[in-house]
Amino acid sequence: MLDTLIKNAVVIPMTGEGEYMKNASVGIKDGKIAYLGHDAPEAERVIDADGNIVMPGLINAHAHTAMCVMRGYADDYALQDWLYKKVFPVEARLDEEAIVAGAVLGMAEMIASGTVSFSDMYFCQPAVAKEVERIGMKANLCNAVLALSEDYDPEKDRAVIETRKLIAEYGVKGRIRADASIHAEYTSPPEIWKLVHEWAKDAGAITQIHISETKTEHEGSYSRHGLSPAAAFDKYGILSTPALMAHGVWLEESDMELLAKRGASIAHCPVSNLKLGSGMADIAAMREAGVNVCLGTDGVCSNNSLDLFEEIKLSALLSKGEALDPTATPAYEALKMATVNGAKAQGREGETGMIAMGYDADIIMIDTHAPHMKPMYDPISAVVYSAHGSDVKMTMVEGRILYMNGEWLTMDVEDAIRRVEEHAVPIVLA
Amino acid sequence: MLDTLIKNAVVIPMTGEGEYMKNASVGIKDGKIAYLGHDAPEAERVIDADGNIVMPGLINAHAHTAMCVMRGYADDYALQDWLYKKVFPVEARLDEEAIVAGAVLGMAEMIASGTVSFSDMYFCQPAVAKEVERIGMKANLCNAVLALSEDYDPEKDRAVIETRKLIAEYGVKGRIRADASIHAEYTSPPEIWKLVHEWAKDAGAITQIHISETKTEHEGSYSRHGLSPAAAFDKYGILSTPALMAHGVWLEESDMELLAKRGASIAHCPVSNLKLGSGMADIAAMREAGVNVCLGTDGVCSNNSLDLFEEIKLSALLSKGEALDPTATPAYEALKMATVNGAKAQGREGETGMIAMGYDADIIMIDTHAPHMKPMYDPISAVVYSAHGSDVKMTMVEGRILYMNGEWLTMDVEDAIRRVEEHAVPIVLA
Repeated sequence: MLDTLIKNAVVIPMTGEGEYMKNASVGIKDGKIAYLGHDAPEAERVIDADGNIVMPGLINAHAHTAMCVMRGYADDYALQDWLYKKVFPVEARLDEEAIVAGAVLGMAEMIASGTVSFSDMYFCQPAVAKEVERIGMKANLCNAVLALSEDYDPEKDRAVIETRKLIAEYGVKGRIRADASIHAEYTSPPEIWKLVHEWAKDAGAITQIHISETKTEHEGSYSRHGLSPAAAFDKYGILSTPALMAHGVWLEESDMELLAKRGASIAHCPVSNLKLGSGMADIAAMREAGVNVCLGTDGVCSNNSLDLFEEIKLSALLSKGEALDPTATPAYEALKMATVNGAKAQGREGETGMIAMGYDADIIMIDTHAPHMKPMYDPISAVVYSAHGSDVKMTMVEGRILYMNGEWLTMDVEDAIRRVEEHAVPIVLA
Repeated sequence: MLDTLIKNAVVIPMTGEGEYMKNASVGIKDGKIAYLGHDAPEAERVIDADGNIVMPGLINAHAHTAMCVMRGYADDYALQDWLYKKVFPVEARLDEEAIVAGAVLGMAEMIASGTVSFSDMYFCQPAVAKEVERIGMKANLCNAVLALSEDYDPEKDRAVIETRKLIAEYGVKGRIRADASIHAEYTSPPEIWKLVHEWAKDAGAITQIHISETKTEHEGSYSRHGLSPAAAFDKYGILSTPALMAHGVWLEESDMELLAKRGASIAHCPVSNLKLGSGMADIAAMREAGVNVCLGTDGVCSNNSLDLFEEIKLSALLSKGEALDPTATPAYEALKMATVNGAKAQGREGETGMIAMGYDADIIMIDTHAPHMKPMYDPISAVVYSAHGSDVKMTMVEGRILYMNGEWLTMDVEDAIRRVEEHAVPIVLA
């Protein structure tokens, strides 16, 4: 017998372009999808979807979740002022308690807006991992290595220490995974890249990297390496294992071809790229070149939201606006970036991102009853162009309901907010 | 004694850049703002804002509200296919009942997402006006004149007949107002522009016009008139009275200077402009030239939402992304477009768009308690970059509450949805 049956749903399984099923049921057993069809097999628990949309949970492929403690603290600044006068000084002051509080607040926001799994780059990740474990999300966690000073010693770098700890404690296969991470081309020399990449190779970890986010960075790489950032990383073998690279705003055609050939993924972060004035990534060209493009929110300091529905809609819109072509990046393609492609980028292909037999039951339910979702000629269009994170009624990971009808079932949200306001805010404002 | 006091609020009055008041109260008497301060004068009804944000209601300066019946019906098509194969054939089939049903559904959505007043261009406006009257929103309604055929007879055109009827019944001063409307430069000859403009002059009405939305339209005007659309309209005196012009994606610097000199407003519709592949309007340049820039959603067919919070955030983001400058269109400027500037564009300056003594009590309350609104270093940033329409807890027009805590108080939403689904959807799909 099934553990759970979700019946009376409009199911978007993400297994084929434009496909959806009406009056369908999804069955779950032992945390996995065990039924998809139009019957209603027996189950211990039955959830009536009441005509709502049921689809795979969303995957946020690039986040700095703990930055939630700085949400709205520094907007509309020039990039260098923002980084050096606002963000970095605060980050240097944040203690583990503040970082964990920010990450927990961010998880509350992600769960409530339909995200089931996130790729996260920040500090204190072993402590954050414990909270991910407790709350029940999936995450690929990393602490990015930067080596800016001459006397950089990896053995004393907390990023190095934490990465090793994460790999040892969580490995690279479960609900919580350790990723390796090179912060970016311009923040460390190739010998450090190779060091980080050794862990990725040894452990089978994904390497998270910021790439070609700004024009300055992209062009600067030529003077530093005589190569674009992508080509420079490739020269040192960094792309020989799967890389999840954030932004890619200034990628050249040859970079896209290279990333496609190496099987690297790009986490497109359109809100952040616009807000920081970085530019607009050409995701249509990337997809054409064969790059796996997924979506990320980046940190809330440059967003200021972790609602992936915004990125889904904006990725479709911006692609059309850039190309002056309303057929660019159609709705299904945008939704695929937030599900199927995100799963691939996290090394979770075959595990999540689809509603299909044997996949983990990482499922969300989206309300279709509010005026802004009516009428509904096409549920895929409704999700991409009309829905918001606030329309999410249920979020489930591995068959466990984390959020339902406005209630968080695995965490105390009031406490999460209190911890941020009482502990983290004074540090940010100090 | 006050009729209503809203106490314990964070008030963003929109009366000065970056200004907000904490623990403040707003008092209302006879539908107008009669108190703003930190005391709590006596009132018949007291609403505890519980630390939520209270600000002027939003103004949607360009909508085709009744198009809600076509939400999601035709996405991701090339522009000419979209218009000629999808939108126009359906519009030709829609009857008054379907149009009114669509407009009512759209009003439900607008009210629930904080819009108090909208400028609307569509058919059957006298019938729609009765619903606006009943529901309690503000609206500037028009039916755009197009004259595409050789034997066009204005006396037989329903747009002409309806405009005259609207002007006669509602005039141009009240909660509901008649506007004149020329659809666009390319859809009628100058003699028709002059005819429409006569009404605007005689009645003191605003003229609503689509302008320079697509490159084809903008460039085509040179072959038709030897002038840009703005310069062509000006040549025939159309801009001698206040015009509210939608889009302006392809405006040249000289157009912007002209519009500024004539006191015309531009309704910026960034979502629609991207979705239809029209391009990205340079609102920073417009504002620099002195043009009054406000915000519109356009119809849901090219959006697919009437949530003005999306346009607010996107207008700020897109402006930065285009200019590669994170300081372009800061948060307060984006919020001003949706309030103060919208009021001006509707001829409602001094009446709405601010929380100030003597202004109409057109007020919204935005929830600040959800994780995505925490922490809140700056309420203006929170509204622009973090909030969604779904965070609106209360919408009030002229002191009357239209929406509160998820309930519509002046309309039957279930009935509105039923009317669309049972009557309009079969027409759309016919």
